[in-house]
Amino acid sequence: MAWEKLRINFPRLLHDLEELGKIGQDKRGGISRPSFSLPDLQARRWLKERIEEAGLIYRQDGAGNIFGTLPGRTSPVVMAGSHLDTVINGGRFDGAVGVVAALECLRRIKEENISVDKTLEIASFTDEEGNLVGDFLGSRAFTGNLQVDNFKKARTQFGHSLEEILEKSGLSLTSLAEAAKTRPELIAFLELHIEQGPVLEEEGVAIGLVSSFAGKRYYRATFIGQAGHAGTIPLELRRDAFIGLADFALKAHQLVMRKYEENTVTVGRVTLKPGSFSVIPGEADFTLDMRSHEAISLNQMEEELLSLAREVASTRSLSFYHQLVDRTEPVKVESGLLNLLEKLCQQLGYDYRLLPSGAGHDAQIISSLCPSAMIFIPSINGLSHVPEEAINPEDLEKGANLLLQAILHLAS
Amino acid sequence: MAWEKLRINFPRLLHDLEELGKIGQDKRGGISRPSFSLPDLQARRWLKERIEEAGLIYRQDGAGNIFGTLPGRTSPVVMAGSHLDTVINGGRFDGAVGVVAALECLRRIKEENISVDKTLEIASFTDEEGNLVGDFLGSRAFTGNLQVDNFKKARTQFGHSLEEILEKSGLSLTSLAEAAKTRPELIAFLELHIEQGPVLEEEGVAIGLVSSFAGKRYYRATFIGQAGHAGTIPLELRRDAFIGLADFALKAHQLVMRKYEENTVTVGRVTLKPGSFSVIPGEADFTLDMRSHEAISLNQMEEELLSLAREVASTRSLSFYHQLVDRTEPVKVESGLLNLLEKLCQQLGYDYRLLPSGAGHDAQIISSLCPSAMIFIPSINGLSHVPEEAINPEDLEKGANLLLQAILHLAS
Repeated sequence: MAWEKLRINFPRLLHDLEELGKIGQDKRGGISRPSFSLPDLQARRWLKERIEEAGLIYRQDGAGNIFGTLPGRTSPVVMAGSHLDTVINGGRFDGAVGVVAALECLRRIKEENISVDKTLEIASFTDEEGNLVGDFLGSRAFTGNLQVDNFKKARTQFGHSLEEILEKSGLSLTSLAEAAKTRPELIAFLELHIEQGPVLEEEGVAIGLVSSFAGKRYYRATFIGQAGHAGTIPLELRRDAFIGLADFALKAHQLVMRKYEENTVTVGRVTLKPGSFSVIPGEADFTLDMRSHEAISLNQMEEELLSLAREVASTRSLSFYHQLVDRTEPVKVESGLLNLLEKLCQQLGYDYRLLPSGAGHDAQIISSLCPSAMIFIPSINGLSHVPEEAINPEDLEKGANLLLQAILHLAS
Repeated sequence: MAWEKLRINFPRLLHDLEELGKIGQDKRGGISRPSFSLPDLQARRWLKERIEEAGLIYRQDGAGNIFGTLPGRTSPVVMAGSHLDTVINGGRFDGAVGVVAALECLRRIKEENISVDKTLEIASFTDEEGNLVGDFLGSRAFTGNLQVDNFKKARTQFGHSLEEILEKSGLSLTSLAEAAKTRPELIAFLELHIEQGPVLEEEGVAIGLVSSFAGKRYYRATFIGQAGHAGTIPLELRRDAFIGLADFALKAHQLVMRKYEENTVTVGRVTLKPGSFSVIPGEADFTLDMRSHEAISLNQMEEELLSLAREVASTRSLSFYHQLVDRTEPVKVESGLLNLLEKLCQQLGYDYRLLPSGAGHDAQIISSLCPSAMIFIPSINGLSHVPEEAINPEDLEKGANLLLQAILHLAS
């Protein structure tokens, strides 16, 4: 069979996705499969069995990343994959589609005995969702750019230290730090994923090709004023930390909409202290998420928003503290790889569009090692990280066939 | 001894306050003595012993309110007291000073064999701080204006139902509903309390006479928009529930400062859902506390703030829901009682000033039964409901002597 005609076995892919979707079902109708939880360990065993059943070579690295290898005539690797872990009460498709589609691609190539020049690997990266100590633990360890020292004392949201959690799975902070040593030479990385936004569905397009990944800055920040009885202190004498935060958040929105319209800023979590009906908030803790596809714009916006916060604090006699929790830089997808995907869409007759990705993905992390690209399929109603996460099967079939053809082209 | 010369035994009062302050000390350096907790039960036993030791008649009503009676020639009662319970991690003076000072007053009158016309009682009311199901549980039950049916399914912040908590102390929802039946005829109620605000300290005045109590409205409210990924949805397309709340809170502050400068509005607690770094808040739950000393102004402000919230919601494509949790009406202190307290301050040579009380107190509830007044002493740095709550001993001595003289005048 000429490999240009090769297509995935779609019923088998759907069956895999269905089986995987049974693992980690929670009481609220979603999937809760954080890395190294019992459901995640079950999903890992399931994937290992599928890899071995397909005749691929199973391998796990020091970060718990799972690989399945189909050796080619040469050792450099074309890799495709995503992640098995989910947020708490998430959906069945985020991450999962990228792993099962990559598995299906290699399975088809193997069963049709298509001989390829490059070695092919599927990958499933540990804790993409950052349930343990931060996003992209596995892919960051894979690149070798992980500061493991930062995690020595880190407690996860589930109360255990990262070290305890790793040890239960036969891993350690040392193995995490050394995960990159077993990494093969990479030619390219491809990730199929749901869009997690509304663009493709609204435009009725089955395939999105990611042109760039947003860079981001995560801050934990606090306005501090003076708590006091809600009934005894006139408004004009208050140093109300929440009013400071409200003022900042509105002005930040206005500033970004006016000067940085391609960028985003989000306050996603707020905790007021002491947090009582009848007490003026003396402290307002909040998270601040800033994103941009342009490095200069991101840095400028970051600087302007932090000065805005200091200005609001000073006007309202509050203090402002902030701590950078995480940062990733914006990345443009390598044009050669993007051109290949565009050409393949045209050959396959799939509607597609280029779009920037505001969310972070393993592919963004791996782009520091080799050209890395992403294929998006529409999220129904743009929903993600919720039990209602859904896709159209036809879109998945197109996305997986595009992935298959891209792998074959890159491997030839 | 002419009763006009009678003064409290101040070292004994201080000793009582110190002993009481040892009950319920928590690890954060404050006092945690919510009603019917183990520390509160210990404080109740301590008070019962002090009442009996002083030769007063101990009584507990169906709401767990504690009384100590010194019978006079006639049965109508002049009552003085406050509460033993505290907020979690509160201070040693809020409530406590009013109970121990009243105890000391009756103890002095009894030990000097001063014969009075009216019966005297000290009172300690259950759950003034509203740790269980809302403020003033005990004094409301005492007045007979408590809708006990509302509490049948109520869970307290500690997870138990009110019914379970009452039963452990030999009480019940029925006894709570019938507490008012054992109430004696009241002539007047007096409460000594810390100011919980900065006015007296700033003006260097030892005594504050409360001229009116603020009325209040407590609402739980919610803006609902649409959650979504912080990296994939442009700001102008968002329905960010937190930005709606921020806009409302700022406009509410501006409105109240402009049109209702004597009133207050406070957002004390905020919960964003789902509450994640990288997710646009789809829901912003918050508390809204509104207070005023004038009934018309309170009602008008309430109406305007609720319309403002609806207007903000409509402008920003959000929904707004609200639920009234509690309301009390403003009360003016009866002028005869206030004049008596002023005259006594002048006779005793104490600096005093009239001031409105923004906080609610048992005295405000009991004012529906009889003329009720409050004597405030300064709070150091205006602090209250925190471990740092403090007073000057000399102020307490003056406040307690004023209370003693007022009781004697009212009882003659």
